Amino acid sequence: MDTQITIIHTRTKKQKPDPDSLGFGRIFTDHMFIMDYDEELGGWHDPRIIPYQPITLDPSCMTFHYGQTVFEGLKAYRTKEGRILLFRPEKNFERMNKSNDRLCIPSIDESFMLEALKTLVEVDRDWVPDAEGTSLYIRPFIISTETYLGVSPSKHYRFMIILSPVGAYYKDGINPVRIGVEKEFVRSVKGGTGMAKTGGNYSASLKAQEVAEALGCSQVLWLDGIEKKYIEEVGSMNVFFKINGEIVTPELNGSILDGVTRNSIIQLLKHWDIPVIERRVSMEELIQAHHDGKLEEAFGTGTAAVVSPVGELLWEDNVLEINGGQIGEISQKLYDTLTGIQTGKVEDPFNWVSEVGTSSSSKSHAI
Amino acid sequence: MDTQITIIHTRTKKQKPDPDSLGFGRIFTDHMFIMDYDEELGGWHDPRIIPYQPITLDPSCMTFHYGQTVFEGLKAYRTKEGRILLFRPEKNFERMNKSNDRLCIPSIDESFMLEALKTLVEVDRDWVPDAEGTSLYIRPFIISTETYLGVSPSKHYRFMIILSPVGAYYKDGINPVRIGVEKEFVRSVKGGTGMAKTGGNYSASLKAQEVAEALGCSQVLWLDGIEKKYIEEVGSMNVFFKINGEIVTPELNGSILDGVTRNSIIQLLKHWDIPVIERRVSMEELIQAHHDGKLEEAFGTGTAAVVSPVGELLWEDNVLEINGGQIGEISQKLYDTLTGIQTGKVEDPFNWVSEVGTSSSSKSHAI
Repeated sequence: MDTQITIIHTRTKKQKPDPDSLGFGRIFTDHMFIMDYDEELGGWHDPRIIPYQPITLDPSCMTFHYGQTVFEGLKAYRTKEGRILLFRPEKNFERMNKSNDRLCIPSIDESFMLEALKTLVEVDRDWVPDAEGTSLYIRPFIISTETYLGVSPSKHYRFMIILSPVGAYYKDGINPVRIGVEKEFVRSVKGGTGMAKTGGNYSASLKAQEVAEALGCSQVLWLDGIEKKYIEEVGSMNVFFKINGEIVTPELNGSILDGVTRNSIIQLLKHWDIPVIERRVSMEELIQAHHDGKLEEAFGTGTAAVVSPVGELLWEDNVLEINGGQIGEISQKLYDTLTGIQTGKVEDPFNWVSEVGTSSSSKSHAI
Repeated sequence: MDTQITIIHTRTKKQKPDPDSLGFGRIFTDHMFIMDYDEELGGWHDPRIIPYQPITLDPSCMTFHYGQTVFEGLKAYRTKEGRILLFRPEKNFERMNKSNDRLCIPSIDESFMLEALKTLVEVDRDWVPDAEGTSLYIRPFIISTETYLGVSPSKHYRFMIILSPVGAYYKDGINPVRIGVEKEFVRSVKGGTGMAKTGGNYSASLKAQEVAEALGCSQVLWLDGIEKKYIEEVGSMNVFFKINGEIVTPELNGSILDGVTRNSIIQLLKHWDIPVIERRVSMEELIQAHHDGKLEEAFGTGTAAVVSPVGELLWEDNVLEINGGQIGEISQKLYDTLTGIQTGKVEDPFNWVSEVGTSSSSKSHAI
């Protein structure tokens, strides 16, 4: 594989956005990373950082028709001292290759993807915002680019990384949300693509989300597709419950995403000697625990929110209030600790963060 | 909705391909149809036929990330007299709106989509090939085009129709295929997107297809995702079995595609007074019927192949041969009659075909 990253700097840098109006995922930085895959050219080749710009594709490009795509999401944080930190980026690229395998997309060397990412963030390091709660959202993704309408794995792909400065997820403080338990629609099932980060899982979830929002819920609580009894995820996050002093989260069963935040939270809880267990969790168990006053906390976990406390569960016509609709003690502690580690404010006993410095293996061209 | 179709003709027509080397889905005609959707511009607008060309999209375009896409597939056929016939195109656009509903994509007026299609085919009518078995494959599709990384229904879409002259599916005569019963991977499940024609269903199927091909099978026979007992589809086709004189096909259960060819075959069989029933069909029943010598025919149905006879079923370590590996009498009669109706050679008692004539409501510009 060609691992020499060519860098072409933009001549016209964009104006940086007002830090108070960042929002999520609408503003992009000055550069992007691209690498192409062609079987007949020996695989992945021509890695390059170029000015952020539109891409041009034939209408018969497979990605428009058969959804053979994967993506990842992670963030870069600016510390008080101005250092740029990444949080466990190697986990994202490890998962990307698992997604690639499920989607029949050729794998990419993980350490090279990490180098490409660090080089890109370094080029656009002025774009990492520094206000409380802000960060640079990083979106690596792969699309299939063969121009062919047959249903088969594409022979051509494009791997890209784009960067978007994002605002604080909790601008007005952490307010627990109401989520609706979904009984009709299914996100994924064992043997499907639920463990992969691929577009089809997200498009399949939109309809249920629309229904939930109409019922005043901000997210959907997904049940398993087979028995419609066991908890899977909440929206596009993993989910945890504190039941009678113990933290439980659905075990990885082939249809649940192996979340980086989920994994980090399990490690943190173990580090604190708080009992945490990965196992099947049924809706029936939650209802019983709530009835017995033992459903003490509930929260979603993911890159965007880090920890998203659940204040109410809507189950059929019943509303199950959790912890008086307030964020729980452990949820708060997990949020503070994880965001603290991510931004360099809290000691990192796990070696989770890695700093973005200067890149060594690149040649640079100004045009 | 703006229903005036602007036509911009190409100045440089491509050379028509050699009819013997058409293949499938790699060659495209001179023009394409485009229409865009923007909430703030009042919905679907600006329908136009323009020279076939690449499209330019931002890397943050939702279609690359969250798979909110739908598509259709149908064919135009040239009769001996040079007329151009479409086969039940209204069924495709009816289904497209059902797919749109599941994927949270705004619906499109069905009669307008049909008019757009007929206008486009008329503009490129010289591209409809006339050799035996050839046709013009038509691919209407919609992609989400909002430039936003949030997971929510897009506010912008593009509807396109592209055309591809395709060769005969059965160049060397109809040879029954071996298909493998899939036990690990799942195509879709009730509550998922299996009844919609959306990219995610097809990307999810690639892995199983790879495994099946390695076992010498040309397609996968999908079982239901819940009990892994009941037959769903074969590859990306519907499936029929003749058991003890009766034709059975899996009933539409929410995870099976409502195929136009499937529907036409059921109507044809009823017209011929051949018993046909839509119901659950278990793998166990097929094995028993085969054991008793009563599994008489099996065939997939879809737009590409029309009828694809199954000669062997690979089930665990067993090979179940069907009808001595030869095409069955009813499979052959269905193939001959359907392709006969489609190409104007056989009387059409159902009013299934409609002719492409001159379009009336368009204004034409040469550039």
